[in-house]
Amino acid sequence: MELRPADSSSGWRRTAYSVIFEADTPAGRAFDVALLWAILLSVLAVMLESVRSINATYGQLLRAIEWFFTGIFLIEYLARLMVVRRPLSYALSLLGVIDFLAIVPTLLSLVIVGSQYLLVIRTLRLLRVFRIFKLGHFVGEGEFIVDALKASRFKIMVFLTAVVTIVIIVGTLMYVIEGGNNGFTSIPQSIYWAIVTVTTVGYGDISPVTMLGRTLASALMIMGYAIIAVPTGIVSAQMASASRPAAQPPAFKQVVCHVCQAGEHRPDAEFCWRCGEHL
Amino acid sequence: MELRPADSSSGWRRTAYSVIFEADTPAGRAFDVALLWAILLSVLAVMLESVRSINATYGQLLRAIEWFFTGIFLIEYLARLMVVRRPLSYALSLLGVIDFLAIVPTLLSLVIVGSQYLLVIRTLRLLRVFRIFKLGHFVGEGEFIVDALKASRFKIMVFLTAVVTIVIIVGTLMYVIEGGNNGFTSIPQSIYWAIVTVTTVGYGDISPVTMLGRTLASALMIMGYAIIAVPTGIVSAQMASASRPAAQPPAFKQVVCHVCQAGEHRPDAEFCWRCGEHL
Amino acid sequence: MELRPADSSSGWRRTAYSVIFEADTPAGRAFDVALLWAILLSVLAVMLESVRSINATYGQLLRAIEWFFTGIFLIEYLARLMVVRRPLSYALSLLGVIDFLAIVPTLLSLVIVGSQYLLVIRTLRLLRVFRIFKLGHFVGEGEFIVDALKASRFKIMVFLTAVVTIVIIVGTLMYVIEGGNNGFTSIPQSIYWAIVTVTTVGYGDISPVTMLGRTLASALMIMGYAIIAVPTGIVSAQMASASRPAAQPPAFKQVVCHVCQAGEHRPDAEFCWRCGEHL
Amino acid sequence: MELRPADSSSGWRRTAYSVIFEADTPAGRAFDVALLWAILLSVLAVMLESVRSINATYGQLLRAIEWFFTGIFLIEYLARLMVVRRPLSYALSLLGVIDFLAIVPTLLSLVIVGSQYLLVIRTLRLLRVFRIFKLGHFVGEGEFIVDALKASRFKIMVFLTAVVTIVIIVGTLMYVIEGGNNGFTSIPQSIYWAIVTVTTVGYGDISPVTMLGRTLASALMIMGYAIIAVPTGIVSAQMASASRPAAQPPAFKQVVCHVCQAGEHRPDAEFCWRCGEHL
Repeated sequence: MELRPADSSSGWRRTAYSVIFEADTPAGRAFDVALLWAILLSVLAVMLESVRSINATYGQLLRAIEWFFTGIFLIEYLARLMVVRRPLSYALSLLGVIDFLAIVPTLLSLVIVGSQYLLVIRTLRLLRVFRIFKLGHFVGEGEFIVDALKASRFKIMVFLTAVVTIVIIVGTLMYVIEGGNNGFTSIPQSIYWAIVTVTTVGYGDISPVTMLGRTLASALMIMGYAIIAVPTGIVSAQMASASRPAAQPPAFKQVVCHVCQAGEHRPDAEFCWRCGEHL
Repeated sequence: MELRPADSSSGWRRTAYSVIFEADTPAGRAFDVALLWAILLSVLAVMLESVRSINATYGQLLRAIEWFFTGIFLIEYLARLMVVRRPLSYALSLLGVIDFLAIVPTLLSLVIVGSQYLLVIRTLRLLRVFRIFKLGHFVGEGEFIVDALKASRFKIMVFLTAVVTIVIIVGTLMYVIEGGNNGFTSIPQSIYWAIVTVTTVGYGDISPVTMLGRTLASALMIMGYAIIAVPTGIVSAQMASASRPAAQPPAFKQVVCHVCQAGEHRPDAEFCWRCGEHL
Repeated sequence: MELRPADSSSGWRRTAYSVIFEADTPAGRAFDVALLWAILLSVLAVMLESVRSINATYGQLLRAIEWFFTGIFLIEYLARLMVVRRPLSYALSLLGVIDFLAIVPTLLSLVIVGSQYLLVIRTLRLLRVFRIFKLGHFVGEGEFIVDALKASRFKIMVFLTAVVTIVIIVGTLMYVIEGGNNGFTSIPQSIYWAIVTVTTVGYGDISPVTMLGRTLASALMIMGYAIIAVPTGIVSAQMASASRPAAQPPAFKQVVCHVCQAGEHRPDAEFCWRCGEHL
Repeated sequence: MELRPADSSSGWRRTAYSVIFEADTPAGRAFDVALLWAILLSVLAVMLESVRSINATYGQLLRAIEWFFTGIFLIEYLARLMVVRRPLSYALSLLGVIDFLAIVPTLLSLVIVGSQYLLVIRTLRLLRVFRIFKLGHFVGEGEFIVDALKASRFKIMVFLTAVVTIVIIVGTLMYVIEGGNNGFTSIPQSIYWAIVTVTTVGYGDISPVTMLGRTLASALMIMGYAIIAVPTGIVSAQMASASRPAAQPPAFKQVVCHVCQAGEHRPDAEFCWRCGEHL
């Protein structure tokens, strides 16, 4: 979706648009850099507020900072709505929704205690700031990764379906084997354990104790070991083939025989291969 | 194995067959979608039943749901047996056995408490439902993965044999080193620990305490780090070579124009591209 | 090293050699299969003996089985020494040493308690049994993996050196940061923790508690995440290039100049490139 | 930066330079090998000193060894400063700074207790010793790895930014979900947990307990499973394309026959392949 300035004739709107939405001018770049810092600092403030000892001493200050940045982001949001040609399109776009969600939690925290922590969603606003680096390599490389993942999405979905099936069945078997003890208190818990195991995370908050359980767990782990090769192989192969130059398309003469309509002649052909007519 | 309708002349059997076994007609598709939901809901019910707090409140209901779906799957199973031409072939096929096993545990739970949890084997019935997506990308991509794993099966078996040998020897050494303490109570337990370690799961339910034990564990971990590259490399290389188009053989007609001696004619060329002579 | 029968004229030695050392005859194959089972059963007996509850009941039996198999392996070892042409070469070869080590621990257990567990070294004897599958795919695939690892050995050594340097430095920093508490009781212990972390094993027997320690640990983990890509990439690239058909040799005219004997002429050359003679 | 001897006319300085800074002469090689051992032994002494039981017994000795090696490294450092042409350039170069930092902690330990442990930074001096192997494969292979990582640096940075964004958001959600209990005492702690989880380290020092928390953790783990494929794929693809020989440019003589105008002669051709004319 291309957003355009609200009114192409009005001077100040055009300028404001280029500053707020674009990064080609020095002012636009400065705006984006300021935004980057505002996002990082406000997210940092939210994080620090959640630390009890810091909250006890600097809570007042941190909440003030939160409101300060929320105010700034609110003004920025309203400014965006004002200078853009179609405010509704912007408000409903992905970035627009994120901009909005970056303001709401502070207001919400007046009603629901703790909801201000959701302000970390502001981190997603960094997506917007990546425009600053648009001319650099980042966007291109990011697109390369996203493209590789997109091209592999069916393979990855098939793979994830297989993993889900395995963890459901192994988790249930484990629940039956360990008999509801040792943390395997229900099938969902056992499935959680199976996921922790097959992904090789291995917290150890739940772990099998019986001989049979450990044998099954060993099988699952070795299977997980082999399984992890699959997504890696998928993405590696995809990226390797993407970075390889495409096999050049067959180079044929852009001409069709006027007698038999045959195409696909050699580039240097003078006569039709099918009917022998001069091309 | 291709299953065919029981009687190609009888109309209703043919229709029933196409609905139950195929997914080309709207009715067949609807049947498969309904089956998909039945499977998911019945597996969910089994899972929830295993959660103690939910079982205490809704146990009665969940068991009723279980019996309901078991009834449906039983009817479906009998219907499959009836409409297929060779019931025995179907009953002994992989999908047929899974269909059967998806019914048994409920009946078995009357005799053996807890066996109803094995109903999660119904998850495997999803394999059947994947036919719905047959026209989509899933089956092809799934086959690509399965083919890559099949082509790598000898390499993976050699790799697993090496891993098993390593864990047996390191596990035993660890049992001797840690002297039966710190969870290394027997060689099988120590082998279990070695598997947990070499696959990088690392529960921490058993972990070495002595200096020598930790040194050996470190060596095993770093080895495991290098080892994990092997299955990944195998599958990556396999997938990369599979997704690479085979270098197409130069497809030229093995003939030279008897007039101008020009070669490299299209395989289906009847006339020389250079002089127009009949080949 | 090629071992040959002791005396090529003596009939029974030749036969015994072919049975014991080769797997081409039915008798030789049967011998290898029997050996495979003997190895597996004896290793299993050793494992079971280490389980306290089993040892309490069947200890006597298991020790008898151990001595039985040790006797068989001793006879086999002596037989090998007898029928081979150069007993010393055999005794000092890798497989010969393993054959010897597979006997010693039982005898040693009379002196040192617990040394019989080292019998699991018999597992390595399976290497010998793999000859049975020589005609199959296993040896070839195993060689493919070993070749890929060999070709990558310098890269892997450089990688491991980098990992060792990182874990030494991070481990020491962690020791200083956590101040000898929370399990980081010495630098070697902290290095052990760093290895557990960077290899993503993560037992959790030692884990940082201080804010600074957790920050450093996070950095190490994310670094480890990126690092794990290196060995995988090395082996994948190696395997991919090994499984790729070699660039086809330059296609030269199969003709040698009858004057100057120069070869490697262009396929369409009519005159020698070195002396100008008509080919 | 190329460092050169201080004074090209003075004989002893030139000799000292070649011994200390180069590894081409036997003396220079011997110096580097001695340095290698000095580094390894001094780092080992520092490590052992940190082990309480060893420190109690051999503390005096270990500290003496430390001062001994510090003295040697100090002399070496001064010698380097003396024989090099531009001492300041050397002192400010990467290796020069490492050489300096390898001496400081011992002196600092007189003021700040425990700072001698930072001597392990001497491990980095091994970088210098790698020159010994310069003629071997190590430097080339190391450069291959570093080049592959450099070429992938933008992709890896994009990837790490995505991972950081994910762990911040998931960590915060987890803090809200688990309500500050079960170790999720603040957002930074929860982010630490998210990093431990997404990198599949999984200490288990913090792990979710609530149903919702475990569900989110499962999602994060499976995501981490798919994510780990990305850096691996990046590096694999990079290495595969780097190790693939660039399609070698057709190596032809840059000359055209002045008689028949034929090109594409062998680089060593003296006569035209088509007409036999001297080139």
